[in-house]
Amino acid sequence: MDNRPIGIFDSGLGGLTAVREMEHLLPHEDLIYFGDTGRVPYGTKGNDTIVRYARQIARFLRGADVKTVLIACNTVSTVAYDEVCEEAAVPVFGVVEPTVSTTIKQSCTGEILVIGTSATVRSRAYEKAIHALYPEAHVQSKACPLFVPLVENDHFGEADPVALLVAHEYLDEYVGKVDTVILGCTHYPILSSAISAVFGQTVTLINSGKEMAILAAKKLAEAKLLSARKEAGKEKFYVSDYTDNFTQLAETLLEHSLAGHVEKTNIEEY
Amino acid sequence: MDNRPIGIFDSGLGGLTAVREMEHLLPHEDLIYFGDTGRVPYGTKGNDTIVRYARQIARFLRGADVKTVLIACNTVSTVAYDEVCEEAAVPVFGVVEPTVSTTIKQSCTGEILVIGTSATVRSRAYEKAIHALYPEAHVQSKACPLFVPLVENDHFGEADPVALLVAHEYLDEYVGKVDTVILGCTHYPILSSAISAVFGQTVTLINSGKEMAILAAKKLAEAKLLSARKEAGKEKFYVSDYTDNFTQLAETLLEHSLAGHVEKTNIEEY
Repeated sequence: MDNRPIGIFDSGLGGLTAVREMEHLLPHEDLIYFGDTGRVPYGTKGNDTIVRYARQIARFLRGADVKTVLIACNTVSTVAYDEVCEEAAVPVFGVVEPTVSTTIKQSCTGEILVIGTSATVRSRAYEKAIHALYPEAHVQSKACPLFVPLVENDHFGEADPVALLVAHEYLDEYVGKVDTVILGCTHYPILSSAISAVFGQTVTLINSGKEMAILAAKKLAEAKLLSARKEAGKEKFYVSDYTDNFTQLAETLLEHSLAGHVEKTNIEEY
Repeated sequence: MDNRPIGIFDSGLGGLTAVREMEHLLPHEDLIYFGDTGRVPYGTKGNDTIVRYARQIARFLRGADVKTVLIACNTVSTVAYDEVCEEAAVPVFGVVEPTVSTTIKQSCTGEILVIGTSATVRSRAYEKAIHALYPEAHVQSKACPLFVPLVENDHFGEADPVALLVAHEYLDEYVGKVDTVILGCTHYPILSSAISAVFGQTVTLINSGKEMAILAAKKLAEAKLLSARKEAGKEKFYVSDYTDNFTQLAETLLEHSLAGHVEKTNIEEY
């Protein structure tokens, strides 16, 4: 038993898709979320910048005495996983391994598309991990750099015409050519209605934040690291900047109030 | 006569619209440009973050021994103008004063729309400056937070359908109701074909970076601070991160090669 909180972080709002899964899977756990709203987006930045930011956040979460860290950000998972492990000094979960494991079970044809930020696509982390387990797979990758700004600016409603147009621009060329799409950025499930509208229902979308949450819940249970608490866990949200709409968008995504539990922290001090 | 360079800065690429004007107006001047590509966008951030970033950049430019600083960023001009003056210790030009001066000459009906980032709109700096000179003006403001990511991600071609759709979403409600639109963000002139397509040719678009460059050129000449150089000035570009496409997009916008004169600087050390 371990009553310490679970730490989850992302460059912004996207990691809340992992928070939503953890709330569902492990409702008795305390969660600490850090969203780097002051420095989002990560995916268009260079690797050394991403590594520096990831180290700072890992140190911040370590200071908050978390029992585990979930990297709810594909860019950090693919570019700075080792550095987060180094700084966090507790078990760390990234998105790549659980996402790949589910993807190769799901894909019938081996025709797989990875969509993500420029940094995630540049890292080729998904391709390498898929090929290590499934050498015959044919993996294509596509960077979709406008998807994060769309989500961060509230363009994710079911019928949002801008999200739909951008999804068509990025993805039309893959329609009919893949059977499984890895949403290789935790922001992207928030746009899944637009992405599904492009591909239709026969293509499986893999939600990387959800896959990570499922694996983390299983591993924490196996290691007897779940909390002994019977009541609902508490949640605390930290951001690096009070942006205009973090709380409002977070409440929309999580479908509950944050109850004022949002605080700004100066992440550059870590 | 003063042969020192002119410093120009922005959160990213937008300030290059001011560089383009300075190249045209004062071709013999050396220019130093700083684009905060590692921390763009500014316009969705809180004021204290914007002030901190602006101070760092002003100190960086002071260290580069510039003779003047042009704040080619509406967000900084409206939120942190005084702080930049404090740090720069040389004459500083912002976008608001010259833009407003031209706007009130141009507008026949006094029906003026200011478009900009959320921070610029929140500051109400344009409204206050217009009303001080033209109390009868009816000023409306609209934040257009997706415009900067569109430019930074290369969605600014003449017929870009995403830029056009986003422009219609933000601006349709003002068509027929204003005669002058202040492009209150230096990124926005790069989207002027989409914005013009919404408003038609009878509405005047005011380019804030251009207005600032015209005023700065005039004032430097009056103060006898122009360089004595007869040959073309040199340009040096600094960025806070090597993003995927800064050089390529900058060369498209400036219509010439940067000739490798792009360097990364760690702005957080300033």
